[in-house]
Amino acid sequence: MHPSAALKPALDALAQAMDNRFDRLLQLPEDPRRRLYQAMRHATMGGGKRMRPLLTVAACDLFHVDKDRSLRVALAVECIHCYSLVHDDLPCMDNDDMRRGKPTVHKAFDEGMAVLAGDGLLTLAFEILADEATHEDARVRAELVLELARAAGPAGMVGGQAMDIAAETSVFDLPTTTRLQQLKTGALISFCVEAGAIMGKAGPDQRTRLRGYAHDLGLAFQITDDLLDVEGDSARTGKAVAKDAAAGKATFVSLLGLERARQQADFLINQAIAHLSGFGQEADLLRAVARFAVERDR
Amino acid sequence: MHPSAALKPALDALAQAMDNRFDRLLQLPEDPRRRLYQAMRHATMGGGKRMRPLLTVAACDLFHVDKDRSLRVALAVECIHCYSLVHDDLPCMDNDDMRRGKPTVHKAFDEGMAVLAGDGLLTLAFEILADEATHEDARVRAELVLELARAAGPAGMVGGQAMDIAAETSVFDLPTTTRLQQLKTGALISFCVEAGAIMGKAGPDQRTRLRGYAHDLGLAFQITDDLLDVEGDSARTGKAVAKDAAAGKATFVSLLGLERARQQADFLINQAIAHLSGFGQEADLLRAVARFAVERDR
Repeated sequence: MHPSAALKPALDALAQAMDNRFDRLLQLPEDPRRRLYQAMRHATMGGGKRMRPLLTVAACDLFHVDKDRSLRVALAVECIHCYSLVHDDLPCMDNDDMRRGKPTVHKAFDEGMAVLAGDGLLTLAFEILADEATHEDARVRAELVLELARAAGPAGMVGGQAMDIAAETSVFDLPTTTRLQQLKTGALISFCVEAGAIMGKAGPDQRTRLRGYAHDLGLAFQITDDLLDVEGDSARTGKAVAKDAAAGKATFVSLLGLERARQQADFLINQAIAHLSGFGQEADLLRAVARFAVERDR
Repeated sequence: MHPSAALKPALDALAQAMDNRFDRLLQLPEDPRRRLYQAMRHATMGGGKRMRPLLTVAACDLFHVDKDRSLRVALAVECIHCYSLVHDDLPCMDNDDMRRGKPTVHKAFDEGMAVLAGDGLLTLAFEILADEATHEDARVRAELVLELARAAGPAGMVGGQAMDIAAETSVFDLPTTTRLQQLKTGALISFCVEAGAIMGKAGPDQRTRLRGYAHDLGLAFQITDDLLDVEGDSARTGKAVAKDAAAGKATFVSLLGLERARQQADFLINQAIAHLSGFGQEADLLRAVARFAVERDR
């Protein structure tokens, strides 16, 4: 990962803040649940780009949301992201042994504990959002829960995972592949930005612009993932390379070709940044995240 | 199942209402997510005692909560209960082929779809609670989400499942077994009753009494499960019998013996009903549910 100079300090600080918060959230209990908590710590701490937390905090910063609160929302988002990786890595799903350069949860523990660790993290996300510490206005808390559940559930991320399984046995065209990725990764990325608008009680016009930004960013992020899947090497990405292509799944690269996929990602990122034109320098972090999404090398 | 005459009409009506609501919640989409929705329908429709929804509705009835709203909360609870069964039945967990007299989700579909169907139902539970249709007061919605997440997460049901896995390799004494069951089944049963108090904005005194009722009911319910596990037969319970004993796990029956376990369940149910003494005939359904919990034969 070589983030732009502007982004590096923000990412480093956030990585530390997330690890600290997961450490406090997942204190090891002195009872037989200990292994479950160890598995949840393994799934969440000491790795990951923390792209979604950064996006959440950047969106909250637009509206001058208190930092402790925006980090709570970021933590909830990362709980969802990490749970999805744990379940996705299971032998009955993608069957991955390595993640972020270390053994996946079912390898380091066992499959049953990986299922439970994922379930636990998924549930904790909603506990964090519904807690008064996240916002004193219960309408804000309820809206965060509602939107995260929609983004993560069968009409969002879980639905995208189900489409991904279907993609193994059928050939998806570009619109269907786009829809798959919007559900699988786009919905949660959109929630990160939406969460800032909810926390900051943004007006309808601001929300529309932020939705446009998040939509384009999510798609560009996924196209970049597909590009890295082909171009990257396992040592740098810390996971197996070109798995989707090997599995015969349609990707943006297989559908568009390398060159057009790269052009499309760049086009989308410029469009994403254009959506932010109504905001001043308080949106600089969101602009930097957008550039990072296509310039990263893992 | 031979519920008391008083309970039979309530249970039949509720079974129908739950099936209708799951049918509407899980309308099959015309896209590749179809199989996911089929798996979620398989997991939720056409079976089950609906004990938790009944308890939820009975607790809401105490406070004259609108029936449509109490059924929404009951639906959320049943989403959680059904997801936990789907994941618990997986080969890497209890490895059960049959549930409620039909193939388990991973048998009828596949393991990946069972993981996703569980994840989807878990997430939908919070979407249902956070929706304005559940209560116009956002504080009520946020409190429902918070309490359900606590009851279902690592400090509740998921934690109990993790203890259950640990029980396979260590010998638990009575206090630890009681704690395991309080987390694994008691926490969600307690939420059902608590949800009525939250929806009805009950005072602290009423909440304390209802918590006492729920605590005793949950434990009596689990002791009865252990008794049925020994005494029942597979044809009636629709699932394998005496699995826990065969796996060498401590149960209330192995720890207390048949006779004392039966006495303890009866004692707890009388105590549960005594907690309701401050309520009039509006608590009759809760009293009937308590008796049913120990008199059922599956």
